[in-house]
Amino acid sequence: MKTFDTSIYFITDSSDFSEEEFLHRVEAALKGGVTLLQLREKEKSTRDYIHLASEVLKLCRQYGIPLIIDDRTDVALAVGADGVHLGQSDMPVSVARRLMGNGKIIGATAKTVEQAVEAYTSGANYLGVGAIYPTTTKVKTVLTSTDTLRAICNAVPIPVNAIGGLNKDNISVLGGIDIAGICVVSAIMKADDVTTAAKELKAAYHKLTRR
Amino acid sequence: MKTFDTSIYFITDSSDFSEEEFLHRVEAALKGGVTLLQLREKEKSTRDYIHLASEVLKLCRQYGIPLIIDDRTDVALAVGADGVHLGQSDMPVSVARRLMGNGKIIGATAKTVEQAVEAYTSGANYLGVGAIYPTTTKVKTVLTSTDTLRAICNAVPIPVNAIGGLNKDNISVLGGIDIAGICVVSAIMKADDVTTAAKELKAAYHKLTRR
Repeated sequence: MKTFDTSIYFITDSSDFSEEEFLHRVEAALKGGVTLLQLREKEKSTRDYIHLASEVLKLCRQYGIPLIIDDRTDVALAVGADGVHLGQSDMPVSVARRLMGNGKIIGATAKTVEQAVEAYTSGANYLGVGAIYPTTTKVKTVLTSTDTLRAICNAVPIPVNAIGGLNKDNISVLGGIDIAGICVVSAIMKADDVTTAAKELKAAYHKLTRR
Repeated sequence: MKTFDTSIYFITDSSDFSEEEFLHRVEAALKGGVTLLQLREKEKSTRDYIHLASEVLKLCRQYGIPLIIDDRTDVALAVGADGVHLGQSDMPVSVARRLMGNGKIIGATAKTVEQAVEAYTSGANYLGVGAIYPTTTKVKTVLTSTDTLRAICNAVPIPVNAIGGLNKDNISVLGGIDIAGICVVSAIMKADDVTTAAKELKAAYHKLTRR
């Protein structure tokens, strides 16, 4: 497996945009320096998901950024994406590892130390932990405290990202916690100027973590 | 690839039943002599789809009947099912063949001769053609004439099944057409006595095709 950088992990949401506008925003985010990109589609047919994934993959390859597919190992395998991200209602990590092989990135969502350890021992390469703040991109938001986030960072030897309602103005709450990065949707996806938003988020994150 | 028999092809629909009742009905259909079984779930999470598929697979193995998974190659691969069935909005047949390998059954839906030939040349092992009659199990029903069904049977050298609102009392419309079998959902799934319904359907089908 190649190394990957989860520091500025952009998770997309195409629901408010035409395909053209969506791809334009994805490219603007890549220009702004996001380090990892996840395509997350909940409503599309398999064929439409594959189509969009192949378009986004072209952009990711152009900018040298890995593409992770939310939930669907079939879509990831169909287009040759770099990995999948699995929530607690998605395919178990161990099954995805068997289908994807050891060369692919498998991420998992964890809300507790127990879930984090389970995901790690099942073969996850990184974790997304949250929601730190309420978010508008999921119907139900279950919050995870920064204490739990810290405990998870201490419990597993893989990168842990914070997720949920994060933006450049509120990530200071993560200071001193050994996270590997932040996941954002709205802060980039819905910004008036996507490239600038990504750059500002990256600057704020690196100021926070001093690296 | 092992041989398979599409003559009495039962497509499930779990939406009106508890899991226990659903599995009971699936087993009752297997007892009644269905020759092929497709698990079709449109609303379940990936994890729930995998769970139900693994339960249904146990029953299918017990009765020696292949299990086909609707749409989702990831679910099929996760549980080790015998194949997938792909509609026009699902993964393209050629992609599924690459992911599944040559040992698995890949079926496709075709409504025109053009779609049928495309599916066959892409590697489909059988076709489902319809809807012959309006059906209650899909939101939109586009009807396919028996003339088109006949033309498809003549156009491709793979088994072609008729589908859509079929039951023991109306399949006579298929007489003289070189179909390999019939696909049914409601006629078995919603029957008061599932085993008897499957047996009666099988008897009616074999009377029609004289074999």
